[in-house]
Amino acid sequence: MKPTITAFESSPDEGEGQARDMRVRWALEEVGQPYDVRLVSFEAMKAPAHRALQPFGQIPTYEEGDLVLFESAAIIFHIAERHAGLFPADDDGRTRAVMWMFAALNTVEPPIVEREAAMILETKKPWYAERQVMLDERVNTRLADLSRRLGDAAWLDGEFSAGDLLMVTVLRRLDGHGVLDAYPNLMAYVARGEARPAFERAFADQLAVFTASR
Amino acid sequence: MKPTITAFESSPDEGEGQARDMRVRWALEEVGQPYDVRLVSFEAMKAPAHRALQPFGQIPTYEEGDLVLFESAAIIFHIAERHAGLFPADDDGRTRAVMWMFAALNTVEPPIVEREAAMILETKKPWYAERQVMLDERVNTRLADLSRRLGDAAWLDGEFSAGDLLMVTVLRRLDGHGVLDAYPNLMAYVARGEARPAFERAFADQLAVFTASR
Repeated sequence: MKPTITAFESSPDEGEGQARDMRVRWALEEVGQPYDVRLVSFEAMKAPAHRALQPFGQIPTYEEGDLVLFESAAIIFHIAERHAGLFPADDDGRTRAVMWMFAALNTVEPPIVEREAAMILETKKPWYAERQVMLDERVNTRLADLSRRLGDAAWLDGEFSAGDLLMVTVLRRLDGHGVLDAYPNLMAYVARGEARPAFERAFADQLAVFTASR
Repeated sequence: MKPTITAFESSPDEGEGQARDMRVRWALEEVGQPYDVRLVSFEAMKAPAHRALQPFGQIPTYEEGDLVLFESAAIIFHIAERHAGLFPADDDGRTRAVMWMFAALNTVEPPIVEREAAMILETKKPWYAERQVMLDERVNTRLADLSRRLGDAAWLDGEFSAGDLLMVTVLRRLDGHGVLDAYPNLMAYVARGEARPAFERAFADQLAVFTASR
């Protein structure tokens, strides 16, 4: 059964692929699963019909028959469980891929999102400069640890997995900020992810939504 | 094989059970799996031997034969996969339990941790009062959505699952802050979690580490 995902009707990042539907599109492309997209406006996202699918009023959601999912990582987990290509075949390897999914979203992403939120909401506040030094430091602590662990490996744990997919999308949030420049191996890691044909197809598809809406 | 987890040698919260080993202890108690605990100092946590297990220099870790895991949620995922009691028996129900695990850690926890970090690090800063209003608002947005979804159900999706276990530990971080008072159903939900015999055993065990170290 062809699943349906939701995405922003109007791209807040103008097609840069930072919205969380990009992760799900990428995962679906990696495993070769066709899908439909239903676009939702910012108003519709907060309305009861969408909240019945997504209690926090966000995108993406995933509908496949009776199964309704939200949280991009959970959707990717489901795709990885059903199709080959995103989890290693052995149980321990699969568990470690899940571990890197949680590490991406609960250890590496929060300070990156916090720093970004301050850049959007607090630039004009008198405290901005002083706080930003603290926020940069928190991001750099995580990046330095991640860079040390990755070393010169291509991916975090053997073959490319759902853990890498999420980690690359988390690090991509720093695009254009110059923060990753200090970590050449993380720059190369992100570039490797972006060079995957599945990433390229997913990126083109989300960009087409923005281009069509202009 | 009896697994070994790591925990703080010296409890930063004086035994209130807010450190992330509490989640893992609780999960192990729910499924009746005995375990060993290795205590680590703040210095040892940042040293190479521990970083080989946990690249971000944190606790808990989980060692079971050749399998080494970090990220409390990934450890709980592994326990839930191997033993009955934390995941529903049907595939879709299990996927939804994983969804609530990610929702707890990536949607509900980040604003709670951010608010808490400001209370620890920025109380003396001139901007504290003005920023705290924003941080409270972000936490309340998530709590209101979660409260609406939970309604008068006992747990988030049918029987108690690993998703509830993580969500309760996330909401417990607000203990003593008065923030949950506005959401009686969430207060009752946390109380239901804390009343589980497995929670009580896990809580007593982490408290004993603090008591013994005094």
